[in-house]
Amino acid sequence: MTTQTGHTEAIAASRVIGTSVYNTRDEKIGSIEDVMLDKLSNGIMFAVVGFGGFLGMGEKYHAVPWSALDYVPERGGYVVPFTEEQLKAAPAYSISELSGDDGEAARDASHNYYGVTPYWH
Amino acid sequence: MTTQTGHTEAIAASRVIGTSVYNTRDEKIGSIEDVMLDKLSNGIMFAVVGFGGFLGMGEKYHAVPWSALDYVPERGGYVVPFTEEQLKAAPAYSISELSGDDGEAARDASHNYYGVTPYWH
Repeated sequence: MTTQTGHTEAIAASRVIGTSVYNTRDEKIGSIEDVMLDKLSNGIMFAVVGFGGFLGMGEKYHAVPWSALDYVPERGGYVVPFTEEQLKAAPAYSISELSGDDGEAARDASHNYYGVTPYWH
Repeated sequence: MTTQTGHTEAIAASRVIGTSVYNTRDEKIGSIEDVMLDKLSNGIMFAVVGFGGFLGMGEKYHAVPWSALDYVPERGGYVVPFTEEQLKAAPAYSISELSGDDGEAARDASHNYYGVTPYWH
């Protein structure tokens, strides 16, 4: 989600995927690997943020609430209001853990960690 | 969006992109080219459906409301409750017409055509 810094209201998912994510100290902390969509409502569940390292079968991701991502055009990326330490300690899961029907606990834990109430509650 | 036919609540945008779209007569009418996301809220605005033909700079797309797409696993694609004639006559726009700040009229016209009230109204 962008706030006042954005130039348009709408953005294509394919353009979001691959965008860099920075913390508030201008340090790149990862990239948006995917966006998780809700099949049962009109909701964007969260952005799937990869935090580097070896891309492989067992890779874990952060589920960052869409509303926590602020697109900053000058940086060409999203800024999240979290410190590096917060992000390092954030819960991380595989894609299947996040997308499965039994993934609600993982999705909830991520939102709770970032202090954002999920829209599905 | 899927209803009871879906197996999971969440789906990654990258998996939605490229999925075939069928009408209620089992005819393939196009593919999901992209998903348009709302930067200012948690909303999935619509699916960008290409209806074949020459892929090029000037290509036009249908903006199909997310709630109108029902994923049918046996078919491996989405089914929309519209006839071929309805789809052929549906409004079509370029990506920039649909995503721009001046694109609200195009987004509204598409929803009105399909009989779905946009969540942003």
